[in-house]
Amino acid sequence: MHQFVRNLLTEWRSLHLPFAGETVIVAVSGGADSVSLLLAMHDLQKRKKMEHRIVAAHFNHRLRGAESDGDEEFVRDLTTRLGGELAIGHGAVSTDGNLEQNARVARYGFLRQTAANLHAFAVATGHTTNDQAETVLLNLVRGSGPEGLSGMKAIRILSDPSEKSEERVYGDEDLAGHISGPAKTLLVRPLLSWAKRIHTEGYCHDSAIEYRYDTMNEDTAFRRVRIRKILLPLLEDMNPKIIETLANTASLMQGLIEKNAPRDPSRTSDELSLSDLRSLSPSDLFDTIRPWLHHRRGTTRQLQLKHIKAVERLVLSPKSGRTAELPGGKVIKSAGKLVYKENKVEN
Amino acid sequence: MHQFVRNLLTEWRSLHLPFAGETVIVAVSGGADSVSLLLAMHDLQKRKKMEHRIVAAHFNHRLRGAESDGDEEFVRDLTTRLGGELAIGHGAVSTDGNLEQNARVARYGFLRQTAANLHAFAVATGHTTNDQAETVLLNLVRGSGPEGLSGMKAIRILSDPSEKSEERVYGDEDLAGHISGPAKTLLVRPLLSWAKRIHTEGYCHDSAIEYRYDTMNEDTAFRRVRIRKILLPLLEDMNPKIIETLANTASLMQGLIEKNAPRDPSRTSDELSLSDLRSLSPSDLFDTIRPWLHHRRGTTRQLQLKHIKAVERLVLSPKSGRTAELPGGKVIKSAGKLVYKENKVEN
Repeated sequence: MHQFVRNLLTEWRSLHLPFAGETVIVAVSGGADSVSLLLAMHDLQKRKKMEHRIVAAHFNHRLRGAESDGDEEFVRDLTTRLGGELAIGHGAVSTDGNLEQNARVARYGFLRQTAANLHAFAVATGHTTNDQAETVLLNLVRGSGPEGLSGMKAIRILSDPSEKSEERVYGDEDLAGHISGPAKTLLVRPLLSWAKRIHTEGYCHDSAIEYRYDTMNEDTAFRRVRIRKILLPLLEDMNPKIIETLANTASLMQGLIEKNAPRDPSRTSDELSLSDLRSLSPSDLFDTIRPWLHHRRGTTRQLQLKHIKAVERLVLSPKSGRTAELPGGKVIKSAGKLVYKENKVEN
Repeated sequence: MHQFVRNLLTEWRSLHLPFAGETVIVAVSGGADSVSLLLAMHDLQKRKKMEHRIVAAHFNHRLRGAESDGDEEFVRDLTTRLGGELAIGHGAVSTDGNLEQNARVARYGFLRQTAANLHAFAVATGHTTNDQAETVLLNLVRGSGPEGLSGMKAIRILSDPSEKSEERVYGDEDLAGHISGPAKTLLVRPLLSWAKRIHTEGYCHDSAIEYRYDTMNEDTAFRRVRIRKILLPLLEDMNPKIIETLANTASLMQGLIEKNAPRDPSRTSDELSLSDLRSLSPSDLFDTIRPWLHHRRGTTRQLQLKHIKAVERLVLSPKSGRTAELPGGKVIKSAGKLVYKENKVEN
C-alpha cells in the first residue's frame, strides 16, 4: 500500500469515520489534491479496507471556457478509468463582487445538493496542510481573531446558513456554513492534518495519473493566490517548515478554543438537560454531544457517528426509548436529563 | 495637553499604575518611540499629573561606532534640556550568534541593574503597536503557538531567568524573562496598546524635538527588520489597517490565554492556600493575586500596586499581621488561607 493511502487510512480512523455502508461524496476539481484523495479512496475500496459507495462530484463553473470543459472531461475520464460514479454540476457563477468567493458558493451549493440527493453521509474534500496554512494567513490578515487562526476543521457538519455568524472567518469554513443541506451530512477533510501539496502531487505521479492545473491559481488578483505565491515563499525563507508550522498553529488554536467554548460547562457536567439540548441547532447539538461523550468516557475511541446519532435521537425523538448503547457504556434519558453510565465490568 | 500625552495618561490609569512617589526608569534609545515616551512623561510631571522620580536610561552598545556615540550624545542633550536624570550604560555585546538578540540581552541587563540600583518601581519602554504587530508575525513564523501570537504584554514583572521556559516565545518577552532583578520591578509598555509609530514621530515633531534613526533598522539581515520592511508592507496592501489588526489579534489572544491559564481554578476560588502561594515564584505570585483580587472584587478599579504588594507581604512575611486593606474590602489571613471580605456598607 502506498504511504499516502496508509496515511489516509490512519487519519480516517482517527477521525472516527465509518468504514462501510455509507455514501461518501468526494469533491474533485481535477487538481492534484482532490485527484489524490479520490485515487486513495478507490484504492482502499479495492483492498476492501473501505466499503462505501464512493461518488466523485465535479462542478464546472465555466469561468475559464475550454479549460473548464477540459477539467470536466478529465474528471469524467478519470472516474471511468476507476470504474466509479460521478456527479457533474454546471452552474452560473455570479460575477458581482468576489469572483473566487462566488465560485466557491456555487460549488458548495452543488455539493450540498448532491449530498442531499444521494443521502450522503459525508462530503470529502482534498484540502491539504498548504490550504490550512493559507487559511491561517488569510484570516490573520483579515483580523478574524483566535477563531480565524484556528483555520479549517478536519471534520464538521455541513450546516444551515442560519446556524452561525460566519462574519469573522474567511476561507472555506464560512461557505460550508452558508449552505443548507441535510443536517447530518459531514464535511470531512482527511488530508488536512498531514498531506502537503508535494505529497498529493507525488502520489498522483507514483500512480501514473495526470492532474489538471487551474490557471486561476496563478492569478494574484485573488488574495489566496497572493498568499500562496508571494507571502508564503517569503515566510519560507525565514522558516523552511512554514507550512507545517502554520498548520500546527491552527491545530493548537483549535485545542485552545475548544477548551474555551461557551458550551464548556456542559461538556464537563455529569448530566445534560434535554430542554437545553433541544434548543440547539443540529450542528451545535452534535458539537455538544460529541465532546460531552468524550469527556464522560475519557476517550472518543470506538465512538462512531452512529453512536452520536443514537444519542441525538434520544434527545429529539420521544419514541426513541430510554437508552442509547455505546461501546463501554450507555446514555440514559431520565427525568429530563441525559446521563452517561459506564458498563460494569463483571469479575 | 497634546493628544499623545492625554492617551498616555489614560493608558497609565487603565494599567492601574501609581501616579506618585516611585522611581520610574524610561528606556531611551534615541528613536522616536522612546523619545516620545520620555517627553510625554516629563510633560505629565510638569503638569503635576505625575509625581515620580523619572530617570532616563540609555545603553550604548557601541555596535555602530560614531553613530552609537551620537545616539548617546543625543540622549544626554535631550535629558539636559528636559532637566531630567540620566543613567548611561556601556557594554560589550557578544558577536557570537544572533547579534540583535545579544544586543537586547545586554541592554536589558543594564536596565535591570539600573532598576536594582535605584530601587525602581518600573522600567517603561516605548514599544508601540507596530512593535506588537512585528512580534506577532515573528512568533507566527517561528511557530511559537497561541502564547506567541499573544505578543507582548503591556505590563509584566521583570522576572528571574529560572521562572519560565521562554523557548517558545520570541521578541522582547523572552529577554525580559531572562534577566534577574528586583523581583517586583515591573516592565511597563504604556504605548503598546494604542500608539503607532506615526504617532510617536508626530508627537516628537509637534514638540519640535529631533530623534535618531537606527541604521540597524534598515538591515534586512535581521528577521524583525525583514518583517517590518518587506512583510508588513505586503500585508498592508491586503489590509491597510494591518498594524491595528495584528495588535488587536494579540490582545484577543491574551484574553483567551488568560481565561485558560493553569491558575484558573485558584483565580475563581473563594480562598487561596498560603502554602500554595508560597511555593510560587514572585512573578507567578503577582500573576495569581492580581486576577484573584480582580475576580473577588469584580473589578480592578482603584486597585494599585501597593495593594497587591500588601497582599504579597501577607503571604510572605509572618510579621505582616492578619489583614491587608484594599479599596472596598480587605484580605484576611486565617487558618492557612487568604480570604477576601467586602466592606459592609452602613445604612
